[in-house]
Amino acid sequence: SMKMNEIIERARNAAKELAILSAEKKNEALLVMAEMLSTEAEKIKKANQIDIKNAEESGKNAAFVDRLRLTDARIKGMADMFKKVAELDDPIGKIIEKTIRPNGLVIEKVRVPIGVIGIIYESRPNVTADCVSLCLKSGNAVILRGGSDAINSNKAIYDALNKAACATSLVQGAFTLVEDTSRELIDDMLKAVGGIDLIIPRGGEDLIKRVVEKSRVPVIKHYNGICHVYVDKDADLKMALDVSYNAKVQRPGVCNAMETMLVNREIAKEFLSIAGRKLKSANVKIKGCNETKKIIDGISDVTERDFFTEYNDLILNIKVVKDLDEAIRHIAKYGSAHSDAIITENAKTALEFVKRVDSSAVFVNASTRFNDGGEFGKGAEIGISTDKIHARGPMGLEELTIYKYVVHGTGQVRE
Amino acid sequence: SMKMNEIIERARNAAKELAILSAEKKNEALLVMAEMLSTEAEKIKKANQIDIKNAEESGKNAAFVDRLRLTDARIKGMADMFKKVAELDDPIGKIIEKTIRPNGLVIEKVRVPIGVIGIIYESRPNVTADCVSLCLKSGNAVILRGGSDAINSNKAIYDALNKAACATSLVQGAFTLVEDTSRELIDDMLKAVGGIDLIIPRGGEDLIKRVVEKSRVPVIKHYNGICHVYVDKDADLKMALDVSYNAKVQRPGVCNAMETMLVNREIAKEFLSIAGRKLKSANVKIKGCNETKKIIDGISDVTERDFFTEYNDLILNIKVVKDLDEAIRHIAKYGSAHSDAIITENAKTALEFVKRVDSSAVFVNASTRFNDGGEFGKGAEIGISTDKIHARGPMGLEELTIYKYVVHGTGQVRE
Repeated sequence: SMKMNEIIERARNAAKELAILSAEKKNEALLVMAEMLSTEAEKIKKANQIDIKNAEESGKNAAFVDRLRLTDARIKGMADMFKKVAELDDPIGKIIEKTIRPNGLVIEKVRVPIGVIGIIYESRPNVTADCVSLCLKSGNAVILRGGSDAINSNKAIYDALNKAACATSLVQGAFTLVEDTSRELIDDMLKAVGGIDLIIPRGGEDLIKRVVEKSRVPVIKHYNGICHVYVDKDADLKMALDVSYNAKVQRPGVCNAMETMLVNREIAKEFLSIAGRKLKSANVKIKGCNETKKIIDGISDVTERDFFTEYNDLILNIKVVKDLDEAIRHIAKYGSAHSDAIITENAKTALEFVKRVDSSAVFVNASTRFNDGGEFGKGAEIGISTDKIHARGPMGLEELTIYKYVVHGTGQVRE
Repeated sequence: SMKMNEIIERARNAAKELAILSAEKKNEALLVMAEMLSTEAEKIKKANQIDIKNAEESGKNAAFVDRLRLTDARIKGMADMFKKVAELDDPIGKIIEKTIRPNGLVIEKVRVPIGVIGIIYESRPNVTADCVSLCLKSGNAVILRGGSDAINSNKAIYDALNKAACATSLVQGAFTLVEDTSRELIDDMLKAVGGIDLIIPRGGEDLIKRVVEKSRVPVIKHYNGICHVYVDKDADLKMALDVSYNAKVQRPGVCNAMETMLVNREIAKEFLSIAGRKLKSANVKIKGCNETKKIIDGISDVTERDFFTEYNDLILNIKVVKDLDEAIRHIAKYGSAHSDAIITENAKTALEFVKRVDSSAVFVNASTRFNDGGEFGKGAEIGISTDKIHARGPMGLEELTIYKYVVHGTGQVRE
């Protein structure tokens, strides 16, 4: 297998060609990739079986094995992603802003690819396919370093995508799977200033922390979602019930699911007696503050540590608060600035919440579950950034780009 | 003096208030700061004298002492910067994009401050004032860690700005000068994940490299400018002469000045015989390739190392190239992706140059010297980013911001 410096050099050369590749050529490659994933589905499943067997024999838990497993439906999902990305608008070359200066200079801000992106991920083999589709469409070369647990699945997916790349004469090095999964090669990626332009770690908090600790290449992080719904005194309580139920129950294992519900004291008794029943009927385990415990029977105490916890499960903290200010302070202290919602019919209260809550997405009268690239109309996403620079919230194609200035003159010189 | 964790905590609290401070309040503070810098000019100059004396006694060179020196004109320049920034549009709260989704959700992408910005810089005391003005207007709290050589000047400027802040009831911690200039406090800043959102080093390559090496907080870098002008065979040679002369001579010590001129072989003899005379008459020391040496008398050889060098001085490399492709490859290999220009009347040639040269600003028939926040209409700049994420080229107020999504619903839940 190739050495990291060879991989990076090939990727840099590929990036130059990808940056000026036409939308048609990119889409052609994407569609052939979609086809090839279907054609090679049996081979991919067979390779996946080896990873599954290894995982089971080494005693990995059921959730781990499930993330690893590739079914026909999941392979179809990967292929569909390529088709979907092919249909999206090409972000590259778009003029974002145009200014004409008093001296006649015409300044265009033009969208261009970032260059070479490194993805460091764990045991989800679909990440391999997703990242190739999004990086190719956005004109970036990508270096993929997946976990050793999924290496056979990743290689099989990579082989299929490579066949498609060859068939459509895509430049070599547009995407590269790092087949040697030793830790040293991650370190080589993280040190590759000037070689790799951006690292995106996809996985658990430990992985992200390790990457941040060591990387000299810029990193965009996708950390936890400790998301809140605040039910205001002026809430439509029926709406509050539906939205908070949705935010917790519809898919509890994801980052934009609610972990803590804050309820204004004035409506706490009326609201929580109904909400408690509904949440319990969906097997939600409730942890409540003292006031909540007086309203909902048979629930356990919520601790300060609970407020800092992303359960990713059917567990919910409930706290009664005095007012909007207490709710906002709670969110600032315990939240992760990911997705937070208020339910209120009071426009002034909503405005204050929206202004003061500094999360990647702030919702008024809607479920936190909507913080998602697809739901925001981006078509696809590589993750949800919790960072404060470059991109916040869902990262779709545009967020995988940057700009350059193109200045047209007629011989202007500076005085 | 305060400990770093205290400084950061105070800055984080201040950032919450600054994020929602009205444009009027921010501008009021900026104007009083401008006034206070003028009022305190004598005190500032007196403090600066101590730094100058120390620098001279420790044998610093003339350029160093000059960067450090605060004259009446320079203090007026700082005050004017505050007035100028007060006049600029407030970037905060601006709706960048608005989408209405099929389910009725209204999604607004709203410009917000980054949060807490750390500036690590060397011996230019004007950086203290510039950064306070730009960060305040963009709603960010700022922590300033300037070099020990300028500490007395920085303290005097800081005292003046603080008086203005108190007079206008600006929140404490909106800007903080780190008065203890020991190295450990830089390290504390670079480790402050969650405390500081962005580090901007301002200074030489060594400083930037040290910061990148150690920082776990995102960094935006302002590296060297190795800038090129390519004189195409279809250039208007009079224009080529004026623009290249301007790019080299008008202010050779800055990052957007030309370091290497590339000349198409077809017009080399005609162009270089005139250009050589004009550049020599401005005391430019020319280093040329063999072909250039045959045209311009009495110049020295250019080496490969020269092509990698940012002279910041009246020195110029000249190379004759076969064609556009050779010019573009030279720029990709030796350039720093800062500012590069082509002089040509051929629209097709210009387009290919613009597409293939991946620099923060690419110029057609204009001087590289225009890559500047003021010249681009940004009003002011904190530097010129050579990074590939978040901001490229001049960083003005907008580039010191990020966005959040604000989503308005009527009770929508996710299916």
